[in-house]
Amino acid sequence: MKARIYVTLKEGVLDPAGKAVVGGVHALGYSEVSEVRIGKFFEMELKDSSDGERIREMCGQLLANPVIEDFRIELGNS
Amino acid sequence: MKARIYVTLKEGVLDPAGKAVVGGVHALGYSEVSEVRIGKFFEMELKDSSDGERIREMCGQLLANPVIEDFRIELGNS
Repeated sequence: MKARIYVTLKEGVLDPAGKAVVGGVHALGYSEVSEVRIGKFFEMELKDSSDGERIREMCGQLLANPVIEDFRIELGNS
Repeated sequence: MKARIYVTLKEGVLDPAGKAVVGGVHALGYSEVSEVRIGKFFEMELKDSSDGERIREMCGQLLANPVIEDFRIELGNS
């Protein structure tokens, strides 16, 4: 069983690294990019019997900071 | 127009941060997790007329290190 977890900054939280990427892509000539926000992406290998609710609880405790971040989980077999 | 870019380490490339997360979740009692690999996730706001092929080229130049990382792009409107 696999879990894919996407951690993103909540709306309204500043993302200076994202702003730096915008500066970088503009410097390379890609002016079509207007905003970038950077998040984290975890691919997790789980035992087949794992409980999705427990995994969600774990993400809130360890992988995301609920004060400034949101997360989304996809559970699947590949 | 929006692009979502997922950057992951190539298979075979060691991920010490992922190993640290495995140690952390085991210490919290989540023994069902056997492997974690950490990647990056970019959400990009683009002009509507943007060319997907150009965006792909940009990712290879700036957002991912093609020696050790793979990336995947999703283009869409939301």
